[in-house]
Amino acid sequence: MSARVVVVGGGFGGAFSADYLRRALPTDVKVELIDEKNYFVFQPLLPEVASGTINAPDAVTPLRLMLPGVRIRMAEVFEIDFDARHIRVVQGTKRVPQTITYEHLVLAPGLEPSLDRMPGFSDHCLTMRNLADAFRLRNHLINCLEHADITPDPGLKSRLLTFVVAGGGFSGVEIMGECVEMVRQALRFYPNVSMEEFHPVLVQRDDRLLPELSEKLGEYARRQLEKRGVEVRLNTGVRAATSTALELDDGTRVPAATIVTTVGNGPRSLARQPGITLERGRIPVDRCLRVPGLRNVWSLGDAALVPLGPGIDGQPVQYAPPTAQYAMREARCLAGNVAATFKGKELKAFRHKPKGALASMGHYQGVGDVFGIRVSGLLAWMIWRFFYIGILPGFTTRLRVALDWLFDYFLPRNLVQLVTEQKSATRFIRVAEGDVLFGPGQIVDGFYTVVEGSLESRVADEQIGEDFVRVLGPGDHWGERAINGAFETHGTLIALEDSRVMVVQREDFANLRACLPVLDDYFKRIPQESYPHGLRDKD
Amino acid sequence: MSARVVVVGGGFGGAFSADYLRRALPTDVKVELIDEKNYFVFQPLLPEVASGTINAPDAVTPLRLMLPGVRIRMAEVFEIDFDARHIRVVQGTKRVPQTITYEHLVLAPGLEPSLDRMPGFSDHCLTMRNLADAFRLRNHLINCLEHADITPDPGLKSRLLTFVVAGGGFSGVEIMGECVEMVRQALRFYPNVSMEEFHPVLVQRDDRLLPELSEKLGEYARRQLEKRGVEVRLNTGVRAATSTALELDDGTRVPAATIVTTVGNGPRSLARQPGITLERGRIPVDRCLRVPGLRNVWSLGDAALVPLGPGIDGQPVQYAPPTAQYAMREARCLAGNVAATFKGKELKAFRHKPKGALASMGHYQGVGDVFGIRVSGLLAWMIWRFFYIGILPGFTTRLRVALDWLFDYFLPRNLVQLVTEQKSATRFIRVAEGDVLFGPGQIVDGFYTVVEGSLESRVADEQIGEDFVRVLGPGDHWGERAINGAFETHGTLIALEDSRVMVVQREDFANLRACLPVLDDYFKRIPQESYPHGLRDKD
Repeated sequence: MSARVVVVGGGFGGAFSADYLRRALPTDVKVELIDEKNYFVFQPLLPEVASGTINAPDAVTPLRLMLPGVRIRMAEVFEIDFDARHIRVVQGTKRVPQTITYEHLVLAPGLEPSLDRMPGFSDHCLTMRNLADAFRLRNHLINCLEHADITPDPGLKSRLLTFVVAGGGFSGVEIMGECVEMVRQALRFYPNVSMEEFHPVLVQRDDRLLPELSEKLGEYARRQLEKRGVEVRLNTGVRAATSTALELDDGTRVPAATIVTTVGNGPRSLARQPGITLERGRIPVDRCLRVPGLRNVWSLGDAALVPLGPGIDGQPVQYAPPTAQYAMREARCLAGNVAATFKGKELKAFRHKPKGALASMGHYQGVGDVFGIRVSGLLAWMIWRFFYIGILPGFTTRLRVALDWLFDYFLPRNLVQLVTEQKSATRFIRVAEGDVLFGPGQIVDGFYTVVEGSLESRVADEQIGEDFVRVLGPGDHWGERAINGAFETHGTLIALEDSRVMVVQREDFANLRACLPVLDDYFKRIPQESYPHGLRDKD
Repeated sequence: MSARVVVVGGGFGGAFSADYLRRALPTDVKVELIDEKNYFVFQPLLPEVASGTINAPDAVTPLRLMLPGVRIRMAEVFEIDFDARHIRVVQGTKRVPQTITYEHLVLAPGLEPSLDRMPGFSDHCLTMRNLADAFRLRNHLINCLEHADITPDPGLKSRLLTFVVAGGGFSGVEIMGECVEMVRQALRFYPNVSMEEFHPVLVQRDDRLLPELSEKLGEYARRQLEKRGVEVRLNTGVRAATSTALELDDGTRVPAATIVTTVGNGPRSLARQPGITLERGRIPVDRCLRVPGLRNVWSLGDAALVPLGPGIDGQPVQYAPPTAQYAMREARCLAGNVAATFKGKELKAFRHKPKGALASMGHYQGVGDVFGIRVSGLLAWMIWRFFYIGILPGFTTRLRVALDWLFDYFLPRNLVQLVTEQKSATRFIRVAEGDVLFGPGQIVDGFYTVVEGSLESRVADEQIGEDFVRVLGPGDHWGERAINGAFETHGTLIALEDSRVMVVQREDFANLRACLPVLDDYFKRIPQESYPHGLRDKD
C-alpha cells in the first residue's frame, strides 16, 4: 500500500490540514480524514443558526464537497496504536472495528465542553459547540416564549423570560447579541409578552467583556448590550446550576429557564490516548507541530498546545490561542512540514502574526480590531460579515450565507422549532429466524433483552475447548458484561425463531444500573455459571 | 368571558379553519388554536425536505405568523369534557393542566402512522408525516451512503444501497422520485459507490401506481421510475420488517437498510375521546361537519369521515378523501357554518368538485390531471410547483421556496446530516435545598431516582387525616405508580439539601418494566406501607 496520511478530526485544524496536505503532497500519497460527522461546522456562525439569521445547512459544509481528492471516513476512533502505526475505528451500524494503517498521523480532535467541575452544569446548561447545540438553544428559547405567552403563573413567566449567558468572551457576547435580537423580532407574535419582561443577563468572571480585545472595545461592547436591555454582571463567577436557577459565586441565585455556558472546555476523549501525556489539558507539540516521543504524529488546532516561540530571557513560553485563525495557519505550516518530511527537507517552525479579531453582536453591531485598528458599530459588523464570507468554504455556501443575511434584512425571521421530537432510549429490534444479531468482533453498544421469541448465544469457551451455548427467552438478557468494558463480543447471537428484542443504549444502561440498587444487585447476583470461562476470567 | 371558538390541531384542516373563522366571526369572538407544535407543516413538501431540494424551515410556517388574530396555544390536549364544554391541556415544563372553556370546538387532529398491524414495522420502518420524519430519512440515507463507501463487506454494501418504499400512492411515488434524484446527485462525492449498485424498490399492493389517477398516468409514472432504475413491484403486499429486510406477502425477503412506509395511517389518540364513537377509524360528522350527539363540536380534515352526499338509490355514501385539497375546502364550509350558528342562520352542506391531482416525481418529472386533463413530464412538474407556491402560506415562504427550487437547479445539493445526536433516556436534574421538584396537580412525566442528597415526599392521607411523609435518599425512587395512570400528584416533593435526581421518561420506564422481569417483580413487591392510604385505595 502506498504511503498514507491520516487526519483525525474535521474541524478547522483537521479539515484545513487535509486540504493543504492534498495540495502539498504528490497525488499517489493518499490523504484520509476521519470524523464522526460527514460535515465541517463553521463554528463562528452557530449563534446565527440559533437565532435563525442563517439556515442551519449553510453553517456547515459536507467534508466530501470541501475536500476533493481526500478520502472521507465517517467513523469513530476506537483506539490508536502508535507503535504499530494503525488506528482502529468503528463505523456504521454493524460495529465491527476496522484497522487503518498510517505513515503520518495528524491529530486534530478539538475541544468539547467539560462541565463536570460545576455541579448541575452538565444537567442544565446549554452549550454552543456544534449544530445540535444551536438547534437545541433555538428550540429551547422558542419553547420558553410559547410557554410564557400562555402561562397564568407570574413567577414562572419571569423565569421563562430570563436568559443567562455565562462567559463574556467572543462566544458569549455573540450568543447574547444574536439571541436578544431574535427575541426582539419574535415578540410581535407573542401578544402577552413584552420586551420589558424579557431579562437577558451576561455573567463574566473578568472585569471586562471581550478580554481578547482592548479595554476600550470591551467597554464599547458592554454599553451596546446594556443599551439593548442586557444586564451585564462583571467580576462575577458561576458556581452551580439547578433546573430553575444559576448560582453565582457570591451565593446569589438567578432564577432562569435558560442558561448558556461558554466557559469550561476540555480535550475530547480522543486526545487522551495512551502514549500522549497532556499538558494543561492539551496535546503537547514542538514548534514544528510534531508530538514529542511519537513517530510521525502531528497535532494542531484547539486541542494542541502550540508554542509560539522559545521563552526568551526567562519569560514564560506563549502558546497559540484556541481560535479558527490560528488553526488555519497551523494547518498550512503542518502540511508543509509533512511534505518536507517526505522529501527529506528541513521543517519550519510555526509563526503567525494575528490579523485581528472581530465579534458580531447582532442588530448590525460589531466590535474588534483589524491590523491593530479598533473598529466598532456597523463598520465592524460589515467587516465581520465580509471576512467570514471570504473564508467560508466553497462558492455555494458563500452565496447562500450572503443571501441569508440579505433576506434577514427585509424578511421576518422563521420562528419554527426545528426538531422537537423526544427520542426514546429504549428501542426494539425485530429479527427473523436465522438472523445473526451479533457476530464475533462486533462491539456491544447496548443492553439487549428478549421480549418475544428466542435466541441462541454461542461463545467459544477457551478452557473447555467447546462452545458455550445458552438459549435466551423472554425476559432473558445479554450484553450486560460486554457493555462495561466496551469490548467486542466473542460469540454470536442468532434468532431461533422470529423474535423481538428491546435495546437500552450503553450509557442509559450504565446510569440505570448505577442509580437503581435493585438492578445493580440483580446483575451482581447473576451466577457465574451463566457465563463461559473465557469471560469469567476477565471480570 | 366572551364566546370562544377553540380549534384543536394545526394541520391543513385546523389551521385553515382558524383562518376562515377569524375572518368570518366578529372580532370580539376569540378564536384559539391548540397544537403540540408551534408551526404548520406543509406536508406535500416533506419529500423535498428529505431530499434536500428545499430548506427544512421553508416547508413549515409558524402558526403565529400564519394566523394573525388567532390565539396560539402550544400544548397537549389531556382530556375533553364535552358536557362541561372544556378542554384540559398540559403545557410547558411544569406539567400542571390548564382548563380552557369553549363555546364551539373544532376537532382536526389528523392521522398518524399506525404500524402495529405489521410485525417489525414500528421498529424498522421510516414514515413521512412530519418534519422530524423528513430529517430522519435524509440522515439515514446519507448514513447508508457514507457507510457503503467505506465498508469492505459486499453483502452489507448491497443492503446499505437497497432503498425500499412500501406504498405506490402519491406519497410513495414522490418519496421514491425525490430520493433517487438525491442519491444520483450525491454519488459523485462517493467514489466507491456507483449508481448501478444503488437499488431502489417500490412495492405496491395494487395493480398500478397512483390509483387515484387514471390507469394511463399510473403506467406513465411506472415507466418513468423504471427508466431511472427503480424496480417497481406491483400486486405485492408487505407483511413484516426486520432490522435487515422487508418481508413481502409471498414470503420473499428483500434485504434493505432503508424501508419507508406510506401505508397504514390511523387516527391520533386525540380522536379517541370518550363521547366519540369512531367509524372506519375516523370521527363521524354530518354533511354540515357537526359531530352527531355532541353540542357545538365540529370536525374536519383527514381524521373526519365527511360524507359527500346522501347515498342515492341504494348506492353507498361517498366520503371525502384525506387530502389537503379537501381539508382546505372543508375548513371554508365549517367556518361559514360556525358563523351561521352565531347569527342563527341556516347551515350549508359540504360540497366540493375536485380540481385535479398532481404528483412530483423529482428530476423535473410530474404526473397528474388538472380539471380533467391529463398532464405529465416537465409540464406537470411545473404546474405542480406553481400550484404549491400559490397555496403556500405567506409571501416570505413563497419566495423562499421559489428560491430553493431555483438554487437547486444550478447549485449542488447540500449533503449534510442535520441532527445526528442520539437522545438519552436517562437525564439528571439538580435541585437546591428547598426547591420543589413536584407540586400538587402536576403530571408525573417520568420515574425519579435519587442519586445524591435527599428529598421529602409529603402527601395528604385522606383516611388518617394527616400528611404521609417519606424521606428519599440515594437509590430511593418516586413516580412509579403515578406514571402508570398518567395522573397528577397529590403531594409535593421537596429537596432537603442540594440533590441530584435521575429521571427516566415515562415510556422508557414502562418498556423497561414490561421487558425486564427483575424490575417488574421489584415494583410489585414494594410494601403497601410505602404509600399513603389515599393512593393505596386507587390501585
